Amino acid sequence: MIIVMKVGTPQEEIDRLNQEMSSRGLTPETIFGRYKVVIGLVGDTAELDPLQLQEISPWIEQVLRVEEPFKRASRQFRHGEPSDISVTTPEGPVLFGEHQPVVTIAGPCSVESEEMIVETALRVKAAGAKFLRGGAYKPRTSPYAFQGHGESALGLLASAREQSGLGIITEVMDADDIEKIAEVADVLQVGARNMQNFALLKKIGAQDKPVLLKRGISATIEEWLMAAEYILAAGNPNVILCERGIRTFDRRYTRNTLDLSVLPVLRTLTHLPITIDPSHGTGWAPLVPAMAKAAIAGGTDALMIEVHPNPQKALSDGAQSLTPKEFETLMGELAVIGNAVGRWEKEAALV
Amino acid sequence: MIIVMKVGTPQEEIDRLNQEMSSRGLTPETIFGRYKVVIGLVGDTAELDPLQLQEISPWIEQVLRVEEPFKRASRQFRHGEPSDISVTTPEGPVLFGEHQPVVTIAGPCSVESEEMIVETALRVKAAGAKFLRGGAYKPRTSPYAFQGHGESALGLLASAREQSGLGIITEVMDADDIEKIAEVADVLQVGARNMQNFALLKKIGAQDKPVLLKRGISATIEEWLMAAEYILAAGNPNVILCERGIRTFDRRYTRNTLDLSVLPVLRTLTHLPITIDPSHGTGWAPLVPAMAKAAIAGGTDALMIEVHPNPQKALSDGAQSLTPKEFETLMGELAVIGNAVGRWEKEAALV
Amino acid sequence: MIIVMKVGTPQEEIDRLNQEMSSRGLTPETIFGRYKVVIGLVGDTAELDPLQLQEISPWIEQVLRVEEPFKRASRQFRHGEPSDISVTTPEGPVLFGEHQPVVTIAGPCSVESEEMIVETALRVKAAGAKFLRGGAYKPRTSPYAFQGHGESALGLLASAREQSGLGIITEVMDADDIEKIAEVADVLQVGARNMQNFALLKKIGAQDKPVLLKRGISATIEEWLMAAEYILAAGNPNVILCERGIRTFDRRYTRNTLDLSVLPVLRTLTHLPITIDPSHGTGWAPLVPAMAKAAIAGGTDALMIEVHPNPQKALSDGAQSLTPKEFETLMGELAVIGNAVGRWEKEAALV
Amino acid sequence: MIIVMKVGTPQEEIDRLNQEMSSRGLTPETIFGRYKVVIGLVGDTAELDPLQLQEISPWIEQVLRVEEPFKRASRQFRHGEPSDISVTTPEGPVLFGEHQPVVTIAGPCSVESEEMIVETALRVKAAGAKFLRGGAYKPRTSPYAFQGHGESALGLLASAREQSGLGIITEVMDADDIEKIAEVADVLQVGARNMQNFALLKKIGAQDKPVLLKRGISATIEEWLMAAEYILAAGNPNVILCERGIRTFDRRYTRNTLDLSVLPVLRTLTHLPITIDPSHGTGWAPLVPAMAKAAIAGGTDALMIEVHPNPQKALSDGAQSLTPKEFETLMGELAVIGNAVGRWEKEAALV
Repeated sequence: MIIVMKVGTPQEEIDRLNQEMSSRGLTPETIFGRYKVVIGLVGDTAELDPLQLQEISPWIEQVLRVEEPFKRASRQFRHGEPSDISVTTPEGPVLFGEHQPVVTIAGPCSVESEEMIVETALRVKAAGAKFLRGGAYKPRTSPYAFQGHGESALGLLASAREQSGLGIITEVMDADDIEKIAEVADVLQVGARNMQNFALLKKIGAQDKPVLLKRGISATIEEWLMAAEYILAAGNPNVILCERGIRTFDRRYTRNTLDLSVLPVLRTLTHLPITIDPSHGTGWAPLVPAMAKAAIAGGTDALMIEVHPNPQKALSDGAQSLTPKEFETLMGELAVIGNAVGRWEKEAALV
Repeated sequence: MIIVMKVGTPQEEIDRLNQEMSSRGLTPETIFGRYKVVIGLVGDTAELDPLQLQEISPWIEQVLRVEEPFKRASRQFRHGEPSDISVTTPEGPVLFGEHQPVVTIAGPCSVESEEMIVETALRVKAAGAKFLRGGAYKPRTSPYAFQGHGESALGLLASAREQSGLGIITEVMDADDIEKIAEVADVLQVGARNMQNFALLKKIGAQDKPVLLKRGISATIEEWLMAAEYILAAGNPNVILCERGIRTFDRRYTRNTLDLSVLPVLRTLTHLPITIDPSHGTGWAPLVPAMAKAAIAGGTDALMIEVHPNPQKALSDGAQSLTPKEFETLMGELAVIGNAVGRWEKEAALV
Repeated sequence: MIIVMKVGTPQEEIDRLNQEMSSRGLTPETIFGRYKVVIGLVGDTAELDPLQLQEISPWIEQVLRVEEPFKRASRQFRHGEPSDISVTTPEGPVLFGEHQPVVTIAGPCSVESEEMIVETALRVKAAGAKFLRGGAYKPRTSPYAFQGHGESALGLLASAREQSGLGIITEVMDADDIEKIAEVADVLQVGARNMQNFALLKKIGAQDKPVLLKRGISATIEEWLMAAEYILAAGNPNVILCERGIRTFDRRYTRNTLDLSVLPVLRTLTHLPITIDPSHGTGWAPLVPAMAKAAIAGGTDALMIEVHPNPQKALSDGAQSLTPKEFETLMGELAVIGNAVGRWEKEAALV
Repeated sequence: MIIVMKVGTPQEEIDRLNQEMSSRGLTPETIFGRYKVVIGLVGDTAELDPLQLQEISPWIEQVLRVEEPFKRASRQFRHGEPSDISVTTPEGPVLFGEHQPVVTIAGPCSVESEEMIVETALRVKAAGAKFLRGGAYKPRTSPYAFQGHGESALGLLASAREQSGLGIITEVMDADDIEKIAEVADVLQVGARNMQNFALLKKIGAQDKPVLLKRGISATIEEWLMAAEYILAAGNPNVILCERGIRTFDRRYTRNTLDLSVLPVLRTLTHLPITIDPSHGTGWAPLVPAMAKAAIAGGTDALMIEVHPNPQKALSDGAQSLTPKEFETLMGELAVIGNAVGRWEKEAALV
């Protein structure tokens, strides 16, 4: 941590500050610049809050953090090595990680009926997907919009899991539902709107199933990793990050701006695996293929793609869903890129 | 709702679409433009989802909503009249509303000790505040930062309430805590990070205490009003909106950008009262007075201001807290503006 | 300037870096932290570019600037004192400054005809304005939209100046026009889109007329002050800053987000006077009065307000223009706030 | 164009409005909805300004545009076909276009010396680049930063062109320099900060050399295409669009957010070719390779990459420059993706 003092700070104030820091177990080192005095704090500063520090003296101009605030999520925490996160599915464990083949997650925004979810599961499985996504509980901007079929949809997901052999990923919106969702799902999803619902993060960190943590629509990368840190600190080491588009000034042609630069950025900051969701990330099905291909070339570990057997009749988010047929075509195109970069599963490539 | 068709849409597709719309109980009216065909939908379209509608035909270019999606929160819902929301305090009800004096809420970010919270309460009461704010449960970016004293802090708030006569406003982060918080608080606060925690909104809408709903850091005004709609639709009509700064590209000199234009904008859209929080809205105590004054001149119904007896020692958010003395001075300046615009309480002005 | 080294930097690299810095005339001071090494650079660092510095060693993690990059625009440059900028008008000099009455600039977006501009000038003069704004050259998003009447409009502005006694403010879009505009205008305006048109800034800084510098739609406060620095460094000390709204994620109910927090922020950073433009800042006439009042209470030195004798027929930006009658009413309301805060001209208050 | 009337608009006002529209040569068609009346305007509405239209009646709630405002830049203008833009180089014409191999532009931020620019040219040529970029005139945030060597740098670019056989792309900041730059450059670049410098756009549209138009840092896609429209409308049909990152709320780990979704979006909107600049788009050399690969997989027509023989000593933007060696390695990786998607030049692949 570095403290920058205002021009003209009296020497006594600097002495006082240094004493205060020493009394907190830190070793202050002072640099007298041409105009300003700068104090470096040596010691365990990672948990100091810069904003609070700022208040110790009215002569402090700025407090600059030198250490990152995340620990368990940091790449250093694993000495530079990436995590492989293993997720169980009916057909055995699937690994998410930097040195693993790209994992594909596909399925509808929400579970609408048994026929629909099972059909989708079988189709996306045949095309190479490993996981079925599908919402039982849906976050909707309007209280009057379809909110998901809830508990009954969980049964349908269980049925689709059994019939297809796919793992299940579904969203938890209310901590009270964690237990019953965890009975069915292989991965619990925390949605973008709940990324800083800290009560939920703590509770989801206290259970065992792997967690897919979506980035909040205006969360910085640092805040996103700190949200992961909540889950990790609560005892669950299996967090998969998912970029799903951020909010910017231009929403005319895309609903969000898919930030693919998180791929190289997160690689250096964290050991956690990364998923890209080009469906929410753009909001329009015709844009999904280009962005999915770009994500693989850019180094993603997984893709999450919305597929609906009949997007015209979708009860939510139809505009961003591919048909099963479009998804099959896309998987063929993705295999080309995936093979070129050595990140595509052998068998899947044969399909 | 208006549907814009792509250039070159075949007549049969337009006919098919019109039939589909008729089968949903809507009356479509078609306009043949020079290049494009536009279909207006007459009927109860407020609950239609434009994104879903879009998917009915691949020939649809755009679906434009003409009606606002909020109902109970809309100004029209009360035939153009503002709501006066009455909140109980030990010294009787206080009204929040467009034709009422500006209500001042003050207090620390978090409750730290009995002495500290009682002292603050007495000081801000003496300066004219009607409500004491203070967090028992604190949303913090880091799991390692001080998370509030929780349940024990609720007891301290109750004590401060009794000794000062101020009403209490405190944040609910976990729906499981609603009941115990509601025993102490006069107003339950939903924080910015939980503005779209729909599970929480529904539960807080199902209880009786008035709710202060903070705007999410990147929530549009429409999304904010839809969050209010969740609470209203769940049965609680007493929602007070609170602007606390939005996230923009420039965070060098302010932590957020306080969007005072919500004052005239919300007036025409909603009947709900409006609070401005210049402390979180700027993040720095020296900026608070100018923004508080601007908020009153711009027409706010209430102000929420952080005050801490010793900001240097604050366990959270010290940088944005005024001292009690600074708060007193500010209240004197606010009275000048408040009296000029006829929105200042008579007695308070005498203090 | 502070250099933060990566974890594990070898001692030789630190020595090499310190030598390199010394050879540039700076005195490096090294702090050995628990994990990281930090080097403070003492000397004349204001013109060093942090991004460039970063490249001196692959072991550098971050370079943090301690000094602000602006000099002539900084408050320190005038030892903490604000500038009073004096602008000539036919009726004598008008002062813009922190200790002066609020100056009002009013007029249409563009000059449309002699009758229209003269009528507007006389009406806004009568209501208390000191300056007439009006575009001869208009920046328009579309090449097919009305681009202003150009040179002929300058003649009309001269006529309005003579008949009304108001000073003239008009925009320069092309450096080739500076000379002929300067013959008529009392203040040259640099528009938001040209805030970083450095070629124009240099040329406008090389002439004598005061300059109104609008903030770019997504310019940080630092970039804005650096744009002012271009003009100041070119020899023209008379720069007035004008906030006109920034671009954020929400553009549904306002065209831009008027950032009133610049008022207290700029006060501490710069000695230059500040104008608020609530017309462009919101984009809608009904929002202008609330924001204009807020701006005065927040401490603005001047206001720029669009007034058009017949907004329905305006060739540009009618939606944000007040009628002369609405402007008169507003000036009455502004006088109430202006008098309350001691920033309203005596005579104008009598009107 | 569609006009939405406010609830309760009197019939006479609707009649008046319809007459007004008819008098402007448009055919209004009125739809009476449940609450609101909507008027569709049939005729040549592309040049109507919605904001102005709004002002025709105080009863108008909203004006919605149905047609895109750009014409010459629109995909429809070429009946759905993409443009191939041919640019001369010493070694013959190079085509930019959707059905052409990806074109690579490489070189330093600014031209520093003959040795440096010629060496860079030869190295990037050998690695497969077709164009050399290099600034003679540099837009810099600070007036005190290096502004480019100007005219003398143009001579060095000419020399590098002759010795390497590469085409030259360089930025025009001042319209007065167009002529002398056009003597040397094969493509004139308009920088992000000047994207809405309409005076410059008009003048650059009036000359013959192809233009590379960078997207403004907060320009919407629509505004960017309208900027292209200025150049096209002035008579120059050879515009290449270049995405270089937009400004968002998170600038901690990237300087800008590279918006790769422009690739599929622009394809449907415009016939103009697209370039991606991952160097400015991220601001950090280590992020460039992932984003360059993603851009090719996503469908870009060209890449612009900063290469500097000695980034540590670069006078500007060193932090985002690759070394020639890093660039060679990257070109090998790009060839893998480029070949996989069938967009890599045969010969270049052999290198």
